[in-house]
Amino acid sequence: MKQSRMYIPTLKQTPSDAEAVSHQLMLRAGYIRQVAAGAYSYLPLSWSVILKIENIIRKEMAKIECVEMNMPAFLPADLWKESGRYETYGDTLFTFKDRHDREFMLGPTHEETFTTVMKENLNSYKKLPVLLYQMQAKYRDEDRPRYGLLRCREFIMKDAYSFSANQEQLDVAFNDMEQAYRNIFDACGLDYRIILGDAGPMGGTDSKEFNAVAAIGEDTIAYSDTSEYSANLEMASSKLDPLPVEEHKAIETVDTPDVHTIDGLAQLLNIDASKIMKAVAYIADEKPVLVMIRGDYQVNDVKLKNLVKADFLDEATPEQVVSLFHSVPGFIGPKGMSDDVRVVYDSSLEGLSNFALGPNVENKHYINANFEDISENMPEFNDVRIVKEGEKSPDGKGVLKFNRGIEIGHIFKLGTKFSKDFGATFLDENGKAKPIIMGSYGIGISRLLSAIIEQHNDENGIIWPVRLAPFQVHVVPINYKDDTQRKLSDEVVSLLQDEGYDVLIDDRGERPGVKFADSDLMGMPIRITVGKKAADSIVELKIRSTGETIEVNKDELVNSVKILLKNQ
Amino acid sequence: MKQSRMYIPTLKQTPSDAEAVSHQLMLRAGYIRQVAAGAYSYLPLSWSVILKIENIIRKEMAKIECVEMNMPAFLPADLWKESGRYETYGDTLFTFKDRHDREFMLGPTHEETFTTVMKENLNSYKKLPVLLYQMQAKYRDEDRPRYGLLRCREFIMKDAYSFSANQEQLDVAFNDMEQAYRNIFDACGLDYRIILGDAGPMGGTDSKEFNAVAAIGEDTIAYSDTSEYSANLEMASSKLDPLPVEEHKAIETVDTPDVHTIDGLAQLLNIDASKIMKAVAYIADEKPVLVMIRGDYQVNDVKLKNLVKADFLDEATPEQVVSLFHSVPGFIGPKGMSDDVRVVYDSSLEGLSNFALGPNVENKHYINANFEDISENMPEFNDVRIVKEGEKSPDGKGVLKFNRGIEIGHIFKLGTKFSKDFGATFLDENGKAKPIIMGSYGIGISRLLSAIIEQHNDENGIIWPVRLAPFQVHVVPINYKDDTQRKLSDEVVSLLQDEGYDVLIDDRGERPGVKFADSDLMGMPIRITVGKKAADSIVELKIRSTGETIEVNKDELVNSVKILLKNQ
Repeated sequence: MKQSRMYIPTLKQTPSDAEAVSHQLMLRAGYIRQVAAGAYSYLPLSWSVILKIENIIRKEMAKIECVEMNMPAFLPADLWKESGRYETYGDTLFTFKDRHDREFMLGPTHEETFTTVMKENLNSYKKLPVLLYQMQAKYRDEDRPRYGLLRCREFIMKDAYSFSANQEQLDVAFNDMEQAYRNIFDACGLDYRIILGDAGPMGGTDSKEFNAVAAIGEDTIAYSDTSEYSANLEMASSKLDPLPVEEHKAIETVDTPDVHTIDGLAQLLNIDASKIMKAVAYIADEKPVLVMIRGDYQVNDVKLKNLVKADFLDEATPEQVVSLFHSVPGFIGPKGMSDDVRVVYDSSLEGLSNFALGPNVENKHYINANFEDISENMPEFNDVRIVKEGEKSPDGKGVLKFNRGIEIGHIFKLGTKFSKDFGATFLDENGKAKPIIMGSYGIGISRLLSAIIEQHNDENGIIWPVRLAPFQVHVVPINYKDDTQRKLSDEVVSLLQDEGYDVLIDDRGERPGVKFADSDLMGMPIRITVGKKAADSIVELKIRSTGETIEVNKDELVNSVKILLKNQ
Repeated sequence: MKQSRMYIPTLKQTPSDAEAVSHQLMLRAGYIRQVAAGAYSYLPLSWSVILKIENIIRKEMAKIECVEMNMPAFLPADLWKESGRYETYGDTLFTFKDRHDREFMLGPTHEETFTTVMKENLNSYKKLPVLLYQMQAKYRDEDRPRYGLLRCREFIMKDAYSFSANQEQLDVAFNDMEQAYRNIFDACGLDYRIILGDAGPMGGTDSKEFNAVAAIGEDTIAYSDTSEYSANLEMASSKLDPLPVEEHKAIETVDTPDVHTIDGLAQLLNIDASKIMKAVAYIADEKPVLVMIRGDYQVNDVKLKNLVKADFLDEATPEQVVSLFHSVPGFIGPKGMSDDVRVVYDSSLEGLSNFALGPNVENKHYINANFEDISENMPEFNDVRIVKEGEKSPDGKGVLKFNRGIEIGHIFKLGTKFSKDFGATFLDENGKAKPIIMGSYGIGISRLLSAIIEQHNDENGIIWPVRLAPFQVHVVPINYKDDTQRKLSDEVVSLLQDEGYDVLIDDRGERPGVKFADSDLMGMPIRITVGKKAADSIVELKIRSTGETIEVNKDELVNSVKILLKNQ
């Protein structure tokens, strides 16, 4: 392909309004242009990458017998009113009326549509399981679209849906999909982590989230530096070292006037915060819950909510500490707490001795307390804390590291929520009507570009993994008007195209410096420079990722390119 | 691919609300389902055809160096307000506001978007020409969506745009595109006609329309039965046989009371309608125009409008005939007509003699009139009539036939309308700023399915052209539970897949009759039935288009399939 016929508007300056590296590079290298906030035009180079990603997805979906089709983005609002998501999505939906005043919306995802269309025919266990997917534009009216393709209002998704007759079929579909997603993200050259996700608005019971490691990511992931362990910070746990065994001292009450923080208490008592048993009072679905945790840790609301199985969780107000916990704000503690308060002990407290804690008396604290001072039996310990970087991974392998992550895929066991909403039932072996068991599986195709470029770039531009590069080889003649150089360049292009490679040739009349800078910026895996040695049929190969160059004779060219591309 | 894992909801009954054959068949054969009026889900079989069409388009676009990219469908309304099309499209646009109350719309086409995005970089003659295209969902709020995929509110288009520095570059792009379109429609196995189109709302100066011949089509095409001549009925012309030469009689005035139609006049005078010079009074941009035409022809408004270069054309009211033509409604004629009325003579009158016409006097007509009775000089004749089927083609080759056509493609020389609207200029060789010369080129991809099926079907279902069939071969075991049949069927599938064919196998537990009916309905080019002779490794090949069957041994299978598919 001739570069003069492509539309690749490279920029010399980094656009000032682009924060993310991937956004900057996609603008600078002429991959994308904004049409509206959160809506981009995919110029020829980025579109070529999108098509390559789509083909990788097609191959992997075919392997697991997941079949491609396509739904409209233009949907009747009634569908979403029926599932209740018209309300829960709220402002995130683009809604409008047609010329006959009927209500429509643009699809942000397609559970409702697939369920209603498929229920017509998937009416017998004999027709299940079925797995279907599509790749298309999706719409969400994000409050703050940003970071280029990372958070858009129109974006490209691959979304798949599985329809199963029983839990085993769902498990097979879910596991197949997980493996396919691994293969896809591996092929994209991504460093990613699979974490157990919070099911969120889908209301599912089981989900996994694929996160590409990147500083620009919107979530924090905690992961082991040596094992596969990985979790969203809200879900992450760690293995704590056993605390040192000490001889138990005698509990005492001391005056602690005007102390309102753990730090203040530690300072006053001249002890470490880790020697304080901190109390945090919560109201969980209107019931009082007192969480005890080591002074150097914070309570993780998500874990606590899951533990006490609450729909709503709030910290208690000072008034509630008095009225519901019958205690004194700032001095609350488990000793003598009334039976209608549930007391939760975080596992950070396990083995702690000679600690300080609140006595439910104003301006006082206990010191040198031990569990036998609080209750007859040793309490049960639960993990309700936010883990810290550097702690041991819960699987015992390696220590936890934190990183930001970009969500690139998500797989859900939906269960029967949507099939019940829409009456999608099938007759089982005994002729009994049952709701179809569903799963849904998404990949953010357009944001994959952002994730990949965040991970694959240097100060000169993008560095494409071989399988995704718009062109595997970029031929750059120093002077394309020179007969010898042009002839050899064209010959090089033909030789490589005949071998099935995608080749771009810079046939522009620009200076070599401009051409090289543009070439680095665009990021094809191999650049072939055709210059003065063209007379001797010698060209220079440059590997984009390492910067290495070698001179090669025309006759060895195809072979050299083959080897170089294989080794990347 | 296993049929049990595809989603192919075939129907035994023809849905009562589907009028078009293609619509009926796509519903019955499980290719599409409606999601909203004018919005369809493309089930796996139809989507597979769409992808094949897209790949044919890709190949042809690559040949003419037209590069693929992708624009959002979600567009700021301002873009279209600037071009004026926000108003001219009116109710046809889907418009809505985002959460910040900004106005947006869904793109029905993308001239505005391409012009604004590309103008940034296409600023020098050195960067031109550039040809770009995309394939994506487009949106039009049609008043009456109908005929399945033929007239939808969400539909799939391929739209291309050319940017040129001069007329020659535009001509090359236009001609390249025409050839590419011919190749694409040929590959789709379509019988189509290329007609000189009315430029319409694009405001272009030159356009060609590709129409697939089909009874369900919305336009009437007139075409020669032997040459390439083809035109929309509104644009078609014909070659009339010379009229017989007669001796001129003397003009007379006769009483014709209460005669208000040509037929009535012909009856009263006992002459043929072709011996009457009919007058039709028009107001063209507020000016009076009197059209004279043979009594057996009708005036073609489009031709007349073009001839008198009018923006608005209406038939004159009886009041206007009196006030502006100074005549009598029903008895108007050219003789003695005032000079401020333009008189147009249709070429059907050339050589007419001894005819009747209106004398501008109530209840009278001239008979036996000749041109010398009307004016001193023989008038100029122009073609302003609607042609009739059976007339000679204007190129003298063959006679005109009429047929309905489905518009499947349209190529336009846009000129500088959009580049001027958006200030898209480039510097020419002399450093002078000029507006870019544009072209736009569309293919209705989803409606192609309708057009192809309208042309390729029989009473049993669809008959796919080989290159578009979702699967080239449909393997149908009589009893897939029978070990011998299953083994041979699976082997047949592998053998053919290894040769690169797309193969579907009916692994369902249905009766053979159901399987065969479904197979014919779905329409793959070759069906391979695996039945009792499986024990002898013999299968039956059936050619869908002809119904021919042959028995073939497993060893000859691949070769037979190869030959049969090549010959279709």
